[in-house]
Amino acid sequence: MKVPVRLIEAKRNGEVLEPADLRAFLEGYLAGAVEEYQMASFLMAVLFRGLDARELDVFVTTMLGSGASLDLSYLGAPRIDKHSTGGVGDKVSLVLAPLVAELGVYVPMMSGRGLGHTGGTLDKLEAIPGFRTDLSLERFHEVLRSVGCVMIGQTADIAPLDRRLYDLRSVTGTVPSIPLIAASIMSKKLAEGLTGLVLDVKVGSGAFLGDPTQALELARTMVAIGETRGVPTEAYLTAMDRPLGAAVGNALETAEAFECLAGGGPGELRELVVHLAAAMLRLGGDTRSEAGLRGVAAACLDDGRALRRMERLVDAQGGDPAVVAAPDRLPRAPVRRVIRADREGTVAAILPRPLGEAVVAMGGGRSRLGDDVDPAVGFRVRTRVGASVRAGEVLAEVHAADDVAAEAGAHAIRTAVRFGEDAEALPLVSHRVTASGVEPVPGPTETL
Amino acid sequence: MKVPVRLIEAKRNGEVLEPADLRAFLEGYLAGAVEEYQMASFLMAVLFRGLDARELDVFVTTMLGSGASLDLSYLGAPRIDKHSTGGVGDKVSLVLAPLVAELGVYVPMMSGRGLGHTGGTLDKLEAIPGFRTDLSLERFHEVLRSVGCVMIGQTADIAPLDRRLYDLRSVTGTVPSIPLIAASIMSKKLAEGLTGLVLDVKVGSGAFLGDPTQALELARTMVAIGETRGVPTEAYLTAMDRPLGAAVGNALETAEAFECLAGGGPGELRELVVHLAAAMLRLGGDTRSEAGLRGVAAACLDDGRALRRMERLVDAQGGDPAVVAAPDRLPRAPVRRVIRADREGTVAAILPRPLGEAVVAMGGGRSRLGDDVDPAVGFRVRTRVGASVRAGEVLAEVHAADDVAAEAGAHAIRTAVRFGEDAEALPLVSHRVTASGVEPVPGPTETL
Repeated sequence: MKVPVRLIEAKRNGEVLEPADLRAFLEGYLAGAVEEYQMASFLMAVLFRGLDARELDVFVTTMLGSGASLDLSYLGAPRIDKHSTGGVGDKVSLVLAPLVAELGVYVPMMSGRGLGHTGGTLDKLEAIPGFRTDLSLERFHEVLRSVGCVMIGQTADIAPLDRRLYDLRSVTGTVPSIPLIAASIMSKKLAEGLTGLVLDVKVGSGAFLGDPTQALELARTMVAIGETRGVPTEAYLTAMDRPLGAAVGNALETAEAFECLAGGGPGELRELVVHLAAAMLRLGGDTRSEAGLRGVAAACLDDGRALRRMERLVDAQGGDPAVVAAPDRLPRAPVRRVIRADREGTVAAILPRPLGEAVVAMGGGRSRLGDDVDPAVGFRVRTRVGASVRAGEVLAEVHAADDVAAEAGAHAIRTAVRFGEDAEALPLVSHRVTASGVEPVPGPTETL
Repeated sequence: MKVPVRLIEAKRNGEVLEPADLRAFLEGYLAGAVEEYQMASFLMAVLFRGLDARELDVFVTTMLGSGASLDLSYLGAPRIDKHSTGGVGDKVSLVLAPLVAELGVYVPMMSGRGLGHTGGTLDKLEAIPGFRTDLSLERFHEVLRSVGCVMIGQTADIAPLDRRLYDLRSVTGTVPSIPLIAASIMSKKLAEGLTGLVLDVKVGSGAFLGDPTQALELARTMVAIGETRGVPTEAYLTAMDRPLGAAVGNALETAEAFECLAGGGPGELRELVVHLAAAMLRLGGDTRSEAGLRGVAAACLDDGRALRRMERLVDAQGGDPAVVAAPDRLPRAPVRRVIRADREGTVAAILPRPLGEAVVAMGGGRSRLGDDVDPAVGFRVRTRVGASVRAGEVLAEVHAADDVAAEAGAHAIRTAVRFGEDAEALPLVSHRVTASGVEPVPGPTETL
């Protein structure tokens, strides 16, 4: 192996590293021959200098090769996952997995926990009494085979190099690097043994990379990684300038997901679910028209089949299936406060970040890994961007553990809900990114 | 203290850090609250983003305050040091310290060891049998008082924060940052209790920062630091596109320094010594004209007073004073080989770096701190840039421990000595940088 400092210097100087040298450096880090402080300065140099396609490929290959990969080919049917880059109120996975499974596509989903202002699918699932996300690999296969979908946390043997780099990045200021984010996400997803992958890349102030140019570059980078490795991959740029749906907070979001699975729930949530379901079905080989695929997905929500599939999933993973049809059996916060408009006006914006941060402050999220989470706390937003509001009209409900927390929640609502003349919202789904390029996505032309 | 990662992120994003935050971060590193890997990524961010004047001041203050400073005010006379950014064949300190001391200015010099392709003053001094550079602080004061100069290594209690950062930078690819280099040098020099400081900033391929623009910025930065802290500081940009003088290698350089002290030696070495001596005398309050100061310095070399002062210094620091007048008593290498031109032509360049690196390879320098050094090996260059050479004419002597090393040395000479039409050499002293700005330095108008 080249002396580690020479590789750091080369990257710092903007040189492109030889694949063998970079691989030896990454493997040397896992083996202890490259020190934490050397990897830290290297990652900062990568943040400034980037990685070219070949270097990125070495990163993904070495991360993937550092651990196990699932072989699900025995299922003999499409295996498609969806990954979101993270937002506020994003409970799409909880609807999408049973919905798409019901329509004949296997969904072997490994998700993360909430960290910072964004929620995590595992935390939302664990709001369901009894639900286990730490299944054995054997049980993972059983549930996937019998239910068609399964939702667990990443197992320790998936991409351990990514795990170590991820932890180091979070304490060394080296998180917002597009190639490093792309390699981290894709090394985990490519270990799932998929035949296709749909990426939901968030844009707007509530996203980690809110700038559309950066989000687009991240989408392109991830699609290229997937396609290079033979996994057809599509990405959609979707709006995170406002929370997705009305509920923010684990149990509240889970309840809203159940409403959506029952054919109801907020319109934007349903629209995004149907859009991404159609994409997953198409990647799974379904050749019907876009309108046809959307119609199939919508019907499956409306006729109760998706909801029943969710009941089977909850049951299979140890949860109480009765909560799916009766979301009021989910944990409930002792203090509820209704927040009303103190003036008349138009809602110009509902900022996601203050709400996401308030959930953490109220005990419903994590400021560090390992923190306990109170599933019951959060918000239900009762207005929308562009709405004309009278003084005294309800803006939101705060669900909190006590009066002090409720007061903090009320403050967050007043920070998040902005009044003004220019109500502008990003299109819910703006762009589609595939191996062949980027294309704008037209707005929905039908009511589902 | 702010969470360390927030400070790293702020610097990464190009923000200017608050003095109190930066100080807490640096002190937290010394105290163990900031991890090595966090400081490593921070330093890489500094390398890309720089430090503004206020941040740099915090760096210098915190480094300086992390250790002891000398109080030499009891001497009641000017105390001036000279520091060089490092080059090949640079034995100026060995001449300058006794010369300037003889002329009434105290020189409390703390020097470093050679690392990489450049030599170090301590290694050259230790080529003198018996010479000690690790004096106690008490003995340091005694020698300084009685001889007027003293030459030791940096004591462990000077700027320990700099020492830790320096070690970390060398293994994390974060060396070539102008503010970090400036802070490191100046924090050590400002601990010496000086009334003035002359900086010799090398320019050309043999310098660490060879590019003139970067060298000028380094000079300006260091001068500003010194002046801010009330220590009048001047910097000179001097040529390191060729070795300084003829000798490269510890004992050979020490012998050449003695020749210069005796009124002889290579013209460029003498010229630079006289130039820097005049600068030190002027900083020490001597108001004579430039020509007058140069004349005084030259006379002191020619009449034997500087040489006798060196004998006193060697004696006071435990060395054999007889070697000063008889340099052939210094360690001698067993193998000497004369390298001759294999063609006729004009010497277009003598590259310093291959020679400096060859001295390391031949055992006369260090590739890592703590390596032992063979004082006897090196080169004596016997041609100069611009010389017309006949085939068979002597280019250099190689002094080596064995035939294999001599062969490597011969190869280095053939790499370093370039023939060609365009012999171009940088002016020996090109610019003077003071608090009032940068001015070109005219070439010498007299023969000394």
